[in-house]
Amino acid sequence: MDLATVIGLIAGICALFFGFIWEGGHAASLFEKTALLIVFGGTFAATAVSFPLSKLKRIPDALRHAFRKADIEPLAMIDRIVDMATVARREGVLALENEANALEEPFLKNGLLMVVDGTDPELTRQILELEMDAVEREREQQAKIFETAGGFAPTMGIIGTVMGLIHVLSNLADPGSLGPSIAVAFTATLYGVASANLIYLPLASKIKTNAQERIQLLELMLEGILALQAGENPQLIRKKLNSFMLLEPGEQRTKKVDANAAQE
Amino acid sequence: MDLATVIGLIAGICALFFGFIWEGGHAASLFEKTALLIVFGGTFAATAVSFPLSKLKRIPDALRHAFRKADIEPLAMIDRIVDMATVARREGVLALENEANALEEPFLKNGLLMVVDGTDPELTRQILELEMDAVEREREQQAKIFETAGGFAPTMGIIGTVMGLIHVLSNLADPGSLGPSIAVAFTATLYGVASANLIYLPLASKIKTNAQERIQLLELMLEGILALQAGENPQLIRKKLNSFMLLEPGEQRTKKVDANAAQE
Amino acid sequence: MDLATVIGLIAGICALFFGFIWEGGHAASLFEKTALLIVFGGTFAATAVSFPLSKLKRIPDALRHAFRKADIEPLAMIDRIVDMATVARREGVLALENEANALEEPFLKNGLLMVVDGTDPELTRQILELEMDAVEREREQQAKIFETAGGFAPTMGIIGTVMGLIHVLSNLADPGSLGPSIAVAFTATLYGVASANLIYLPLASKIKTNAQERIQLLELMLEGILALQAGENPQLIRKKLNSFMLLEPGEQRTKKVDANAAQE
Amino acid sequence: MDLATVIGLIAGICALFFGFIWEGGHAASLFEKTALLIVFGGTFAATAVSFPLSKLKRIPDALRHAFRKADIEPLAMIDRIVDMATVARREGVLALENEANALEEPFLKNGLLMVVDGTDPELTRQILELEMDAVEREREQQAKIFETAGGFAPTMGIIGTVMGLIHVLSNLADPGSLGPSIAVAFTATLYGVASANLIYLPLASKIKTNAQERIQLLELMLEGILALQAGENPQLIRKKLNSFMLLEPGEQRTKKVDANAAQE
Amino acid sequence: MDLATVIGLIAGICALFFGFIWEGGHAASLFEKTALLIVFGGTFAATAVSFPLSKLKRIPDALRHAFRKADIEPLAMIDRIVDMATVARREGVLALENEANALEEPFLKNGLLMVVDGTDPELTRQILELEMDAVEREREQQAKIFETAGGFAPTMGIIGTVMGLIHVLSNLADPGSLGPSIAVAFTATLYGVASANLIYLPLASKIKTNAQERIQLLELMLEGILALQAGENPQLIRKKLNSFMLLEPGEQRTKKVDANAAQE
Repeated sequence: MDLATVIGLIAGICALFFGFIWEGGHAASLFEKTALLIVFGGTFAATAVSFPLSKLKRIPDALRHAFRKADIEPLAMIDRIVDMATVARREGVLALENEANALEEPFLKNGLLMVVDGTDPELTRQILELEMDAVEREREQQAKIFETAGGFAPTMGIIGTVMGLIHVLSNLADPGSLGPSIAVAFTATLYGVASANLIYLPLASKIKTNAQERIQLLELMLEGILALQAGENPQLIRKKLNSFMLLEPGEQRTKKVDANAAQE
Repeated sequence: MDLATVIGLIAGICALFFGFIWEGGHAASLFEKTALLIVFGGTFAATAVSFPLSKLKRIPDALRHAFRKADIEPLAMIDRIVDMATVARREGVLALENEANALEEPFLKNGLLMVVDGTDPELTRQILELEMDAVEREREQQAKIFETAGGFAPTMGIIGTVMGLIHVLSNLADPGSLGPSIAVAFTATLYGVASANLIYLPLASKIKTNAQERIQLLELMLEGILALQAGENPQLIRKKLNSFMLLEPGEQRTKKVDANAAQE
Repeated sequence: MDLATVIGLIAGICALFFGFIWEGGHAASLFEKTALLIVFGGTFAATAVSFPLSKLKRIPDALRHAFRKADIEPLAMIDRIVDMATVARREGVLALENEANALEEPFLKNGLLMVVDGTDPELTRQILELEMDAVEREREQQAKIFETAGGFAPTMGIIGTVMGLIHVLSNLADPGSLGPSIAVAFTATLYGVASANLIYLPLASKIKTNAQERIQLLELMLEGILALQAGENPQLIRKKLNSFMLLEPGEQRTKKVDANAAQE
Repeated sequence: MDLATVIGLIAGICALFFGFIWEGGHAASLFEKTALLIVFGGTFAATAVSFPLSKLKRIPDALRHAFRKADIEPLAMIDRIVDMATVARREGVLALENEANALEEPFLKNGLLMVVDGTDPELTRQILELEMDAVEREREQQAKIFETAGGFAPTMGIIGTVMGLIHVLSNLADPGSLGPSIAVAFTATLYGVASANLIYLPLASKIKTNAQERIQLLELMLEGILALQAGENPQLIRKKLNSFMLLEPGEQRTKKVDANAAQE
Repeated sequence: MDLATVIGLIAGICALFFGFIWEGGHAASLFEKTALLIVFGGTFAATAVSFPLSKLKRIPDALRHAFRKADIEPLAMIDRIVDMATVARREGVLALENEANALEEPFLKNGLLMVVDGTDPELTRQILELEMDAVEREREQQAKIFETAGGFAPTMGIIGTVMGLIHVLSNLADPGSLGPSIAVAFTATLYGVASANLIYLPLASKIKTNAQERIQLLELMLEGILALQAGENPQLIRKKLNSFMLLEPGEQRTKKVDANAAQE
């Protein structure tokens, strides 16, 4: 569970709500059931039309990806792959079968089992790259659903407000109620813009950033599996995989590792 | 027929309409024939100018693509290709001729007939990739027509409203009618924004998502046809084609299939 | 002449104009000479600054491309190339010289003459691809001029309206004229948004769509010329060039042609 | 000096100014020193933050590129390269040394001197491509500065107007001054939108279009230098370089040249 | 420290503030604590949801990159690499070990140590390119955080203003306070648009421009390290690395260097 995401969602709604209360507003005037129907109903409907049912069913999955923290640290993954490469060099790739079967991570497991099976290296790369593409496409689609909702919500808000204004302006019999009626019309804009910018768009962005991290980890694993299959020197493998990590002035960790690798 | 799309379209219009009625609005004040002419006429005209007649004639086809469910499941397609690869290995590719002629799917049929004819593998790939590009281009064009309409509709709405305001403000003799007249002007904005965001843009998005699924299926078929032509091991073909499908932690199906394939 | 484009342009302006008249507006209140100067003068000036004179001189050419129908049908072109490939196979490429000189289509003519001259195939491809790039660049530039004008026009409309409001609000001596004066200010917005969305942007889109069709035809010709030069089998050439055309379920034409080709 | 650019800039400002005067506005009400400070100061500051000092120093250079006409015609450049190729074929590349040293055009000069020096063809291509990339990057950066300013200016205008409205609405003691005060607030919007759309964005577009022409000329020179170094036939070089130019139906020039080349 | 950035940030805020004061506004009316909470709290929350905690922790690092001047001049870097190439040619690459260890620049140091270690050239390129990609990704992410904040801030401003208007319009008991209350509501828009356009977006742009310069320097170093490893002629290396710099008409520096190199 990524706490920053949960706290951010709550904090955003609180900042808006308490800002309004602090100004002297009444909580009740923020709640307008017709605007709720128009904005959330309209956004939901437009999003449902935009995607086939098979994609819409993946929304809970998308939410899980948005809130979940990356489960595997790249550095831990590098250690694991280097360890397995050492075993493979000493005892042959067949020695990895039990270890591979015990793995949680499906991409690494699948890749290692292909290596154990003696699959042709070129075919291994091809299959793992196709799997990587499938993950990328899936995550992009998930982010796109929220992005699409985030694009429709403000326009549904505008539609709600315009319909509210049409209603108000058609019945000017009682000018005294003009102000409150326009206020009601504005709640639709508020719902649309707030739901898009506090919920849909930030979640879409989170899914995308998490997907990028996942893809990067898959690339690291792919490079590691292929190097292991080619029987490369474990220290060279570590060096290569470390290059996926950032190396900036002032950062000592990677430099030390590289220095060590260089001395060996 | 993709029910999510049909229900979404109806639900969106209902959410807006009943939201307005619930607020106390009169259905009649949402119907304004001059605004209808300006917004729908203008959008239609601008879209007609944007595309050659040959593309506009494909709109019914585009609608069919938007509402149709994907007819072939990728998993069923994989089974079929693996079956045919088994036949081809045992009895030679000529044995596939009758099966190919009975196929509904034109891309697979065309590809298999080329294999049966003994077309050069490189030429087969080239021709099938050109056909794939033609499908991609066609679907993108279809989505673009709706996207273009979705871009013009809100601006036509603004034009209608501005013309309404020009009319109202030029004749302020009777200030009492100011409100209702402005309400009438606003219906143009409502038509423009609502038609774009409930109809044109969601349909464009749906056509694009469906096109992506179709292209992905064509890629799977292309890979399968070429592997079959190369006389590859049917289990390897299944393994390769399965990689087009998503492999995520928690998903057991593909893992099992791969495990089986690995054991054979 | 693409009738859809001409009718679309006229229909769009009519829809707006008669919508306004139907509402009870006076045609005269849509005509405001200062707004005309600001919006069309400003758009023209900003567009003139955006491009070098050499590009601006191509505007008539761009208009010609926007209104012209595609002159050559891809299917007719395929027939012609296959015919010439048959001649070239029977009588040698030199037999094509007269036919090539009689051609209207400069790309095909130029390519065939190079083949007749015995130009190296690699050089032929290189030169024809450079020519194709030149056409693509030119058409994109032409579309961009209209797109740029379509981007400036609405902002010029806003400038005109803001200037109108500044003028009106500075002189509130006679409140009675406030309404009509604001109406006048709004005509600038009307001109800007309408000219962009009924004229500039649709024409830009049309030029782009036509350019795509032209480029596709050039690619088909390029592939045909190279295949002819390589002395490929005319039926194979037809098969390859047919792949540039769409092959969809329900479409019989291409399937039949392919089936025929497969039987030969 | 590209006259279209200078005239366009002046014409745009005149169209707006005289449109306003014609409407009966007073020139003085368009001049508001606080709005000037907010809009131009804010735009300048935001742009200064957006780029490092080293890029900001290139603004005069960027302006020079925006206003300058292309100095070399592609056709003249082709003639020159073909002439030099003829000399190189007859007398060897060393004969080009004096001619190269006398050249104004640094890219061609540098390339020819490398050829004269006997630099390896692959290295020549590599170095010239790196130089081409450096030009492209530089021009894109220059265009981006103006584009960035064109993005900030309208928002600074909105900021100025909002601050003006805050000021006006906080002091409603004298309702008579409400109109003129709002008019003053609107001048900020006017400055922001007009400066962006009449100056910054058109100049950015001009720099980009000129850069494209320059890059195209560099590509032509690169191809010419490499062909000359390879000792290719001058007529073939002309044919190849001519392909960089547009070849359209109705255009006779290039066709004739190609016909001539074909007869030789 | 890049002074242009610091001065720009201060100047932008001053331009707006003093413009407002000059107009006769009271500084106090620009300070509204509820708007501060809504706009800055909302922007912070939405941005926090958009990125995983691991990326948010890099914000101080991102700010350091935004304000820091490029520490190494490309020309000085070229001199250094050419010097080292001269040493490597005379005394062998092992002679560079001490010099490499003394280097500040981690990319160059890491690359040279691999050369000293006798790492395979292809592997050296692969590792250095992976490191370059990691830097690029990291900087893009940093810029994206500020870009995202710059996208959310204006919408939070609109939310604040709409909530303010809802509050005002619901309580029209005292019409005299209508103006000042709307003024208060507008401060939220002011905060949102100003913070986005004076702070977030310019900083994002600065980080991106600096990242481009850094990547370019890394490319130059990569090319230099590989050339040095290949034992290329130092003058050729200088010539190649100089091509990363701009070569424009009127610029004498690079031309001279190239002329010299040509004479040697």
